[in-house]
Amino acid sequence: MQLGLVGLGRMGGNMRERLRAAGHEVVGFDRNPEVSDAASLAEMVDKLAAPRAVWVMVPVAFTESTVNELAEVLSPGDIVIDGGNSRYNDDLPRAERLNERGIGYLDVGVSGGIWGRTEGYALMVGGAQEHVERLMPIFDALKPAGEFGFVHAGPVGAGHYSKMVHNGIEYGLMHAYAEGYELMTKSELVTNVPGVFKSWRDGSVVRSWLLDLLDRALDEDPELAKLRGYADDTGEGRWTVEEAIRLAVPMNVIAASLFARFASRQDDSPAIKAVAALRNQFGGHPTHKN
Amino acid sequence: MQLGLVGLGRMGGNMRERLRAAGHEVVGFDRNPEVSDAASLAEMVDKLAAPRAVWVMVPVAFTESTVNELAEVLSPGDIVIDGGNSRYNDDLPRAERLNERGIGYLDVGVSGGIWGRTEGYALMVGGAQEHVERLMPIFDALKPAGEFGFVHAGPVGAGHYSKMVHNGIEYGLMHAYAEGYELMTKSELVTNVPGVFKSWRDGSVVRSWLLDLLDRALDEDPELAKLRGYADDTGEGRWTVEEAIRLAVPMNVIAASLFARFASRQDDSPAIKAVAALRNQFGGHPTHKN
Repeated sequence: MQLGLVGLGRMGGNMRERLRAAGHEVVGFDRNPEVSDAASLAEMVDKLAAPRAVWVMVPVAFTESTVNELAEVLSPGDIVIDGGNSRYNDDLPRAERLNERGIGYLDVGVSGGIWGRTEGYALMVGGAQEHVERLMPIFDALKPAGEFGFVHAGPVGAGHYSKMVHNGIEYGLMHAYAEGYELMTKSELVTNVPGVFKSWRDGSVVRSWLLDLLDRALDEDPELAKLRGYADDTGEGRWTVEEAIRLAVPMNVIAASLFARFASRQDDSPAIKAVAALRNQFGGHPTHKN
Repeated sequence: MQLGLVGLGRMGGNMRERLRAAGHEVVGFDRNPEVSDAASLAEMVDKLAAPRAVWVMVPVAFTESTVNELAEVLSPGDIVIDGGNSRYNDDLPRAERLNERGIGYLDVGVSGGIWGRTEGYALMVGGAQEHVERLMPIFDALKPAGEFGFVHAGPVGAGHYSKMVHNGIEYGLMHAYAEGYELMTKSELVTNVPGVFKSWRDGSVVRSWLLDLLDRALDEDPELAKLRGYADDTGEGRWTVEEAIRLAVPMNVIAASLFARFASRQDDSPAIKAVAALRNQFGGHPTHKN
């Protein structure tokens, strides 16, 4: 089928390739004319026959403005799909605004990163059943072959909500491996730490795709000597913990993994300075001076 | 090759099957005469030609006494392999006692549970290179086919150490999925929580064998309605956190997953009683009475 695709970066560009390989007709638009199939959003829309479907795959900061621009050039009966990392509670207001113009809306959480083009993207979809059904040929082409990798999780918002939780879980998983890694590197006994991680890739209870990636990283740099212990975050972990607070769900593990990333980005810790000051106050314990 | 195998329960019994299927001659001993191949440890040893290798696969409470009994009936040049869940710092004293009699010792962390018979067991081995080489035919038969699932992690103790860390990581991984599960069940948006977990089995960053098992559990009982929120622990998680304390390694995620299990086993929480009492003391906040 035909699909408009806005945003042809690392994710969108690979998705266009995967969709075309599956026989779909993709008209892509990107600000970068070297990769774009159309000179403007309006031209992209003109190249599609109604009723249209336009997939938005832009950095989250540009999603709202892109959808607003699209609303001006699309027609009743068309559908907008947001495949970016929007926060789930932006979805319903956006869907309602589009709905006033007779335009449908689906939110899709997309996982798979740079591996998605060849292995397929895991898709978590929120929206109305009729819209999901219209887009199924596209979803089928993007998802991995086989029975997994796609879910219609619920109404508008449920796709990004599931993706948010997915990423929160990812923080916790990564950190569990990471703590085990640090412990083994400090131990006197384990002389082949990368070998232990490699061995776990089959037969063990902890085997996973993330473990495969950690093994890959350790193959390239067995002591991770080229890296500094500094980890960014892109929002979903924070949103997951904020949502746990809203719903009063105990979330010690995922919160701890998020907070450890925050700590990794501090040049010095005001909290630990306060601890050191207090230890000195009540016990005369020595402090480390700046 | 020949192998003596002490303990033919769920793990040892399946391992005997897998070893025999690979063409090895296993003489098993178990207290239960219905499954045992010998009437006593001594008879088992008599049935093996020197130099012998005897694999101990008994509950951890019986490992020390079993190894001591074996020491009495084995000969110089024989090897004892402990495949149980011994604490790593029991290994070196045990190896030294055996070494005084000229008997070798290997410690092996075994992962794979009830799936190991068909899929193979992940093996983490500690001990001397010459002993590892002698046992390689056995290790090759027990491990999964392919390049992974076996590591010689270091000297005596390193096998159980790696397995301890493996299980600590397992606690954190399980808990990350579990927190995401609880959050989604509480949310108003995700109407198909089991479907979301199932979808992640392919293409997603969080795909793993533990996720496959959680999907399996949700297939059988989509709301886990048959279960109470109660989780035991068998020691390795505690040892991992104790070891993190010994080596001053920050381990917030794995510790949090361990402590959440402890909390799950309390009928009531003295700590939260103390919080409620203090809230009442300073703020007059209402309490819940017993």
